Order: sequence, then structure tokens, then C-alpha cells
Amino acid sequence: MSTQFQGVIPPVVTPRHADGSIDTASLTNVTKHLLDGGVAGLFVLGSSAEVPYMTNAERELVVSTIAEANASAGADAVPLIVGANEQTTNRVIEEAKKVIDLGADAIVVTSMYYAIGNASETETHFRAVRAAVDKPIFAYDVPVRTHFKLPTDLLVRLGRDGVIAGVKDSSGDDVSFRQLVLAAKDIPNFDIFTGHEVVVDGALLGGAQGVVPGLGNVDPRGYRNLFDAAQAGDWAKAASEQDRLADLFEIVYTPNGRVSGGAAGLGAFKTALQLMGIIESNTMSVPMPSLNETETTAIKVILERNGLL
Amino acid sequence: MSTQFQGVIPPVVTPRHADGSIDTASLTNVTKHLLDGGVAGLFVLGSSAEVPYMTNAERELVVSTIAEANASAGADAVPLIVGANEQTTNRVIEEAKKVIDLGADAIVVTSMYYAIGNASETETHFRAVRAAVDKPIFAYDVPVRTHFKLPTDLLVRLGRDGVIAGVKDSSGDDVSFRQLVLAAKDIPNFDIFTGHEVVVDGALLGGAQGVVPGLGNVDPRGYRNLFDAAQAGDWAKAASEQDRLADLFEIVYTPNGRVSGGAAGLGAFKTALQLMGIIESNTMSVPMPSLNETETTAIKVILERNGLL
Amino acid sequence: MSTQFQGVIPPVVTPRHADGSIDTASLTNVTKHLLDGGVAGLFVLGSSAEVPYMTNAERELVVSTIAEANASAGADAVPLIVGANEQTTNRVIEEAKKVIDLGADAIVVTSMYYAIGNASETETHFRAVRAAVDKPIFAYDVPVRTHFKLPTDLLVRLGRDGVIAGVKDSSGDDVSFRQLVLAAKDIPNFDIFTGHEVVVDGALLGGAQGVVPGLGNVDPRGYRNLFDAAQAGDWAKAASEQDRLADLFEIVYTPNGRVSGGAAGLGAFKTALQLMGIIESNTMSVPMPSLNETETTAIKVILERNGLL
Amino acid sequence: MSTQFQGVIPPVVTPRHADGSIDTASLTNVTKHLLDGGVAGLFVLGSSAEVPYMTNAERELVVSTIAEANASAGADAVPLIVGANEQTTNRVIEEAKKVIDLGADAIVVTSMYYAIGNASETETHFRAVRAAVDKPIFAYDVPVRTHFKLPTDLLVRLGRDGVIAGVKDSSGDDVSFRQLVLAAKDIPNFDIFTGHEVVVDGALLGGAQGVVPGLGNVDPRGYRNLFDAAQAGDWAKAASEQDRLADLFEIVYTPNGRVSGGAAGLGAFKTALQLMGIIESNTMSVPMPSLNETETTAIKVILERNGLL
Repeated sequence: MSTQFQGVIPPVVTPRHADGSIDTASLTNVTKHLLDGGVAGLFVLGSSAEVPYMTNAERELVVSTIAEANASAGADAVPLIVGANEQTTNRVIEEAKKVIDLGADAIVVTSMYYAIGNASETETHFRAVRAAVDKPIFAYDVPVRTHFKLPTDLLVRLGRDGVIAGVKDSSGDDVSFRQLVLAAKDIPNFDIFTGHEVVVDGALLGGAQGVVPGLGNVDPRGYRNLFDAAQAGDWAKAASEQDRLADLFEIVYTPNGRVSGGAAGLGAFKTALQLMGIIESNTMSVPMPSLNETETTAIKVILERNGLL
Repeated sequence: MSTQFQGVIPPVVTPRHADGSIDTASLTNVTKHLLDGGVAGLFVLGSSAEVPYMTNAERELVVSTIAEANASAGADAVPLIVGANEQTTNRVIEEAKKVIDLGADAIVVTSMYYAIGNASETETHFRAVRAAVDKPIFAYDVPVRTHFKLPTDLLVRLGRDGVIAGVKDSSGDDVSFRQLVLAAKDIPNFDIFTGHEVVVDGALLGGAQGVVPGLGNVDPRGYRNLFDAAQAGDWAKAASEQDRLADLFEIVYTPNGRVSGGAAGLGAFKTALQLMGIIESNTMSVPMPSLNETETTAIKVILERNGLL
Repeated sequence: MSTQFQGVIPPVVTPRHADGSIDTASLTNVTKHLLDGGVAGLFVLGSSAEVPYMTNAERELVVSTIAEANASAGADAVPLIVGANEQTTNRVIEEAKKVIDLGADAIVVTSMYYAIGNASETETHFRAVRAAVDKPIFAYDVPVRTHFKLPTDLLVRLGRDGVIAGVKDSSGDDVSFRQLVLAAKDIPNFDIFTGHEVVVDGALLGGAQGVVPGLGNVDPRGYRNLFDAAQAGDWAKAASEQDRLADLFEIVYTPNGRVSGGAAGLGAFKTALQLMGIIESNTMSVPMPSLNETETTAIKVILERNGLL
Repeated sequence: MSTQFQGVIPPVVTPRHADGSIDTASLTNVTKHLLDGGVAGLFVLGSSAEVPYMTNAERELVVSTIAEANASAGADAVPLIVGANEQTTNRVIEEAKKVIDLGADAIVVTSMYYAIGNASETETHFRAVRAAVDKPIFAYDVPVRTHFKLPTDLLVRLGRDGVIAGVKDSSGDDVSFRQLVLAAKDIPNFDIFTGHEVVVDGALLGGAQGVVPGLGNVDPRGYRNLFDAAQAGDWAKAASEQDRLADLFEIVYTPNGRVSGGAAGLGAFKTALQLMGIIESNTMSVPMPSLNETETTAIKVILERNGLL
């Protein structure tokens, strides 16, 4: 079954200067680093981009910066899948139109949040967004943030009806993930991505089309190797590459409770990129603290043993 | 202890025309109905206003419409406490500045949502908003939406340091509510409101300064009577008025699972106001369905037995 | 409406010797202390008794020890309401028969736990227990342990059908508590108790028949005074007594995260009773740690400022 | 690394006669069916056995019936891993001793439930059970029932210290599962099993030692084929067998909300076994309803298309 989107599509992090302003030069560097790493697309304004923490002006700056860096890669440019991250339907539609104007090739939409909805309202929500925009829509299933798990039958129905072009799954529910992959098998050009960095081999073995790994910011080539091994049917190699990446993922545990779950993971990715010389500072969005020296040292050790420094 | 804000401060609903556009004439009517009912303030852009579902333009229209209707009441005008409802710190600050320009006398701020924070980031969050705006800030504790319960010790510390002027509690946790009231007793001008319509007598007996009842849109006078009885120490009367209002609150259960929790309660308030001739339509924000004829009939019965029709 | 059970019915703690064995002499002392404090009944084998941690032999020893101490009070003896704490229906029935043989005047039954049920199975569960035993049954709503909130309409239906004689509510949901009290108002001899130590005044104002306070082990007389004030309609005095008891309840926060929620509260009650000379040791059931010297010192301060030492 | 336990170890269901009593003849049939299917062990008194619903006498009857049927297989007999399912430490120890006397080769222990513990008490809990019994202990991670997720670092520490011999993971958290497998890789004779029927290929690819599939009651041979393919490195065949079993797993969704989650899955397994002529009745434990004719017909269709009828 031919698919529109497949492979490694990392959610691009958002570098900031030490004063908190967006660091467009570093963002351009990250984009090039990812393209050089062999990624198949870029997921822009995702959770890993700290999108909930950005002002509207910052969101626009980030999309246009990545779009420009991507365009300058010429033939090596990849599709931009951009988050239209807002609380409810009409706000999502406004946001979607904005990011499409800025160059999005597809948009990513979650279920509502802060609002208290149900499955029926969620269906109306996705159909209303579909009616208002003319780019492919990916449903983003991230109940740890939205506190609503997208039901498998709803996703399949939206897929069959052409409302959504695929799913980015960060639900942490591998059972429903497998069931979605099976149920959606015969929908043309319907692409399912896992958002979980350490179980990509199993997801691909089960039939997923790709992965959106936050850790892919740090090691895009590693995920590309994993994906290529899987495509080639060399599952032992895929699992072994996955095990190495799972070890690399330990960088997110270096803060060990000192900071919030949000700040720990994203802070670790930024700190790694800073150590690798790709971005200038590991500064986080307000109100998140940046990782400190102790944590930076611990991350350095992990990068070194994985050959990234 | 003198307080800045106390009494009945209902969260004003947002009427829409059948076509979905904001109905400013009906909104003006609701505002007058509330002022006539003896309310002590108006909570604008709260959850009951369907604030998460409004576009930015709609939010501005709603605040300015209510501000105008309130101003035209002359000496009977009351303070406007306006929600600065956004995901994270810098977005809240932008929203807060906007609503203050539109006439807010105080703002209401929740902990972050969609973002995954912790107590320490939440403290930074409130302190950053405080540093950026010069109107009183009420912390809004609504874990059913934010999925983060504001810790009592944090609220007390923020109160003592003058960061927040009070708390609107919709946590559903009456134990922590009482402990907050006790712990904050000696903070000057610190006001604590319950958001729960059916336990106001107990909250006032425990020492709360007021109530922000969604149901107060329908029966502001009833809540005023309850509050006055409590102020006068006539607790038997307060409890009896509360029991009557608890019966009136049954309107929110008429959909009985047909629609989401959000649509049921707010839909019932709007349907009641429509039946009472105060607003034109019970139309809900996209993607929420409006209550139907069966539900409207059931609500009519409840309004009638409570003397509101 | 006459009621079978009302007033203060504390859940009796289970003293252990330092070696972990049940300390029957101390248990007899606690029982006398409670009867002297003016309690209206004793809740035996409740959560505060550490019932989940007891072996079957220990449970029998505890019930018979309390029953004997109670009986020796002669005319001052009170009803024993005993927990039949087991995972599912048939196990509850076996347990209920055992405790009735040992002297229970009524039994307390939760919804199932570990098992994954629903409202319909829960209804079958209570009806099956009712069919098997001939003592009054109290439904115990404790979702923090069972992870199932007993629905108000189910409780009312079970009450009307004579399946249950009342409810002990430890749900922490004051809204549904008030709605239950209102909905059950006309059921004869149906008694509703709150299990929350610091909101008893509000619960009684709302129409509850009594309270089952863990803290009542430490200060039964204080709760009796609160109850008597409420009965007399002196709500200002009830609230003031409640505020004092809320301050006393601070003993449960002295461990401040060092031990589990279970061990902190029960450990504090036992430590207070030890300081007051009523029990020999504050030893907890395996695997819970006992409170340490620092915590004991902090508890002493709180007892002293509340006139209990 | 040699391991003590690996392969397919299904949790044996508990057949009941239509009158609710344990059907030992059918239980013997199920046991033979599983041994014939090539299983490597039997998980007795697991959740799939409806263990929470059994009285103590029933538990003993079930263990001894399976032990006898297994023993009569002579050289084909397999190890019995038996659940010691109780609320807390001392109760687990009593239960463990009982099942070891009845023939358990290893026991399965969850964290506490109904009790409110923490990680430290859970560690004490497992160490206390270890000190009291002399058979291998498997930690059973089932937060959907215990509402406590066993932390990876705790499991690894207990493994290294010889307290536990492995883990049965029904946490639904594939990320922590992979991290556990990696972290425990160098612990000798430490075996990790997934309890999730539809993601076994991925779990084995990641390094798990085996699977405890409830669905294995219905199709033990299918799981054996999956396991053998994985052992042989034929991952395409493993995935294809997994896909077929995922389709078979659809039997658990036939009730579609009519009954509780517990009753649906176990009811489906029993109904399938009844249709296959292996057990006499699909009767469930009180208070669970049995699947009805409509559901039975739907299950028949699924069994037929998977070649099991």
C-alpha cells in the first residue's frame, strides 16, 4: 500500500538564546542536522518544540525559520508536518490556516483539551477542521496531555472517510496501537507513526509506517538506520539499533525528579545538542528550568558511550 | 479581616445566535439579569463562558460587551474578574494584558495545561504573571481541566507574598478547601471562592468569602439570598436555600449521558435562560451540541417547581 | 425521620506491640477511651484499623476484643458496625458471616476491588450480600482504595429497596455527598456518614446523620461536642469546634512525604494515642514504617496546643 | 543467559458449572488442552482464573485439580506458577504457603492493593515474602488492578538481590517494559513475561523471555508457533502469527460495553472454550454476567475464520 508519509520524522526542538528569545541560527542548524541525518519529514510545532510555551509570534517565527532552512536544502527538502495546537475546534482552524500559509504540507491536530469533550464531539472536531483546511491532517493521540484517548474505531472511521491521513500515536498504549495498525491496513495512504523512542522496532514489525522520535533530534541517523534495517527485514539489526537508542534515551532520566517530566526530556535533548555543538544554549521556555551542570555532565557520559561526541 | 471581593460572583455564560455567532444583545441581557440579582462581581471568560471554545476575536467581543453593560449600570456596576485562559506563562501574560486593556479589574489564572508541569514551575508561572501585570490575580484551581491540583501550601505562600489575591476553587476537594481557608485566615484581603453550586452553605460556614456559581446565571437572587442568610448567621435558612438550589441544579443532569459533561451543564444553563426569556438561543460553541426538545421540556419542569418560570 | 445510627462512630485503630502482634490490652483501652468520649457506635475493621494488613486470625481477635470491651460497658455499650472487607461478593459474604458471629450489629461493605467491575455488577454484589446476611449493611464509598465511585442513583435505589441501611462516604466528593443526602431524605432509617474529619460541620448542616472520623480515636469528645452543637443548631460553635479539630488533624502531615499516605495518617493517630498514654506502642502493620522521634515530637506540639496532653 | 522459565505460560481459566460451582472435569480438560498446545508452564490463580472472585476453598480446589491434571501428563508436565493473590504482605505470605503446599513451583505476587502504599513499602513487601517462602517469586505488575505501577529500578534491584525471579508485566506500558528488559539483561535466570496478547512479537524482539496470554487458553498452539518463530529468528512469521492472534483477540470486544471489562474478556475466553467443546459452560463468577447468545454467535464467527472450529 503506497503511503504519503513514512520513515523518521522528528519533532524539531526549539532552541532559545540564554535570554529566552528564539535562536533562529541554532534552529537552522538543527534543521540541517536532521536533514543530514536522513529524516523523511519534519514535525514542526510538536510537544518537543515546546509549542504550548510559545507565543503566537514565536510560533510563526519557528515555522518560517524551519521552512526556509528546509527549502534551502533544495532537492533534499522534506515535507513539513506542522502542529495546529489549540484548545478547541475554531481555534485549531485559525491556527491551521496560519501554519499552512507559512508552508505546512500537512497539519497535526489533537483532540480538545482544557475543554471537557467526548468521542462524538471529537469526531465533529476533526470533521470541522477537515472542512476548513485543504492539507492532510494527522490526528495526534497524546492522552498524557489532552487526557482523552482517541478511540481506535473513531480513528479508523475518520481515516476511511478521508478526514485524516494518519495518526501520530503517543498514547503509550501498544495494544491499541497494534489494533489500529491492523484495522487501518487497507486504508490507502493512511500512515501511522509511533511517538515512543524505545519501541520503534516492535512498532515497525507490527506494521507502522514511521516514527516521530524526540530523541531523533539528537541522533537522526540512528533512527534512520533502525528504519532501514526494518525495511530490509533485518530485525535483529533493527532491535540492536533500538537497544542502543534506548541506552541513549537514558539522557532524559539524568534530572531524576529535580525538574518536571516536560522539562527533563526536552531539556536533555537540548543539552545534548548543545554538547554536540549544534545549538548555542540549552535554555528552556518559561517557566521550565534548564538542566544544570551535574545533569549536563551525566548526559555527556551517555553521549560519549554512544559515539555521539 | 476586610476583603476586596466577596459574595456571589457568577461566571457569565456566552449566548450565541443559532448561526453560532456571539449574541451581544442577549449577553447584555444576561449581564443586567445578574446585576439585578444582586451579584457582587462578574466572572468573565470563565469555563462557564465556554472560553476554551472562543476565538480571540470572540473573547474580546465578550469582554467589551459585558464591560459596557456593566458600566451602563452606573453606581450598580460591579468589579469584573476576567479569565486570562491560556496554556502557559507567556501566553497567559499576553492574554492578561489584553483583558486588562478591555476593562478587567482582576484576572483569573489557572496552572498550565497541555504542558506537563509541577509545583515548582507552577510557582514560577504565577510569579511571572504577577511581575507582568498590575491587577489582582485569582488562582483558579480546576484540576478536572488542568489535571494539576494547586497545592495548599503553594497557594498560601503566593497569598502571603502578594502574588495572588485569592483563589477560585473548583477542585471538588472539600478537605483541602477547608484547610486553605484556615491556613489563609490571617492573610489580609485574601478571598476564597467555591465554584461548586450545591455546597455553598458549608463553604461559607467554613469561612469562604464567596461563590462563583455557574447556576448563578439562572438564579442569581437565590445565591444572593443564601449568601445574605449566611452573613446574618441564619444557617438553617442558608441550608434550606442551598437545598432548593441543589434541586434547581438537577437541570444539568437532564441530558443524562447524551452529551459531554461540558455540553450538559452549560447547555442546561443556556436552555434555562432561553426559557426564562433572557437569551435568544441555547446554541453551544462548536463542536458541542445544543440541548434538544426533550431536555428543554425536562428543564422547564425543574424551573417551574423552583418558581423561576 | 427516625434513624438507627447517628452521631460519632469512630473507626477503631488497631494497636500492636513493638513485635508486631496485636496488643489487646491497648485495644481495650482505646475502646474505653472512645466510649468515655461519648461515641454513638464503633466502626470495627475499617481502613483506620489497618484491616487490609491483618491476617484472618488477627481480624477475629480484634473484633472479639472490642466486642468484649464494649459489652463490659453495660448500659453504655454502643452498636458495633464491622467491616466485611474482601475483594468480591462471595468472599465478602464469608467474611460478613464471620464478623456477625463475633458480634457485629451491622456490616460495612465496599464495592469490589482488584476485580474490575461496573455499576451493574456492583448492584448485583450488594444485593447478593443482602440476600446472604441478616444485619444492616452500610455501603462504604472509598474510591481512593476501590477505584470505583458508588453512583448516587445506585445508592438511593439500594436504600429504597432495603438492601443497604446507609452509606459511609469517604469519596472526597462533597457535591455527590450533598446530592445523596437530598435524594435519600425520605428513605426511612437511612443513615449517611461522612468519613472526612475536617468538613463535618458542613456535612451535618447539609443533613448528614453522623461522622466516622479516624481522628475521633484521638479526640472523640471533640467530635461529640461538634455533633451536639450541630444538633442544637449552634452552627457557629460547630464551625469553631471543627476548626479546632482541623488544626488537630495537622498531626497527619508531620511525616511530610517520608512515609506513604496510609502510614502517615494512621501512624499519626497511633502516635498521638501513645503520647496520651492510651496505647503502648505506635507500631504499624507490615510493611508500613512507624512514625519516628522527629514526627512524634511534632505531634506532641500539636496535641499540646489543642489541650490533649 | 540460561533462564528458568520461558515460552508460553497461559493463565488458566476457571470453568464453572451453570450453578456456579467449580467444574473440575472441565478444568482438567483445559489443562490437557494447554499441555497439548505446547505450553511451557501454567499460570494458576491469575486474573484470568477469576482469582479475586474465588473463595479460599475454591482456590484450593482449583490448584489441586490443575496440579493433578498436570502430574498425570508425566514427562510432559510443566512448572506451575501460582498466584498468591492477597491485599497485603502477611496475607500474601499465608496464601503463598498454602499454594506451595498444593504444588506451586513458583509464586506470583502483586504489589499491595486496597492498601495505599508507596515504592518503599512495596520493596519491604516483596522482601518479606521472599524471607517467608522458598520458591521463586514473580512480581506481577498490573496497575489497572493494583493502581500502583512497579518502578523499573525497584524490579531490577529486587532481581539483582535474588528477591524475585522475574516479572509478569501487564502494565500496558511498553516503554518501561523495554527498559526493564534492557536493565535486567545481565541478571542470571531472570525472566520477563508480557501479559498482553497482541504485542508478543514486539516483546520477544525486544528480549522478553515469554508470554502469559489469557487468549492462550483458546489457542495455545498459536502462541507456541509465534514463540517458535521468534526463537528461530523468523520475525516475519512471528508478526504474521501475531496478526492472526490479534484478529482472534477480537472475541473480547463482542460484548461491546454490555458487561464490565473483566467479564467481557474472561467471558469471551470461556465462551470460546465452550464452543470448542473443551468446557461445559461459560458461566462466570458472581457477580459477573455470562456472555449471551448474540455474543456467543459473534465469537463463533471469529473462531471459524481463525480455523478453531
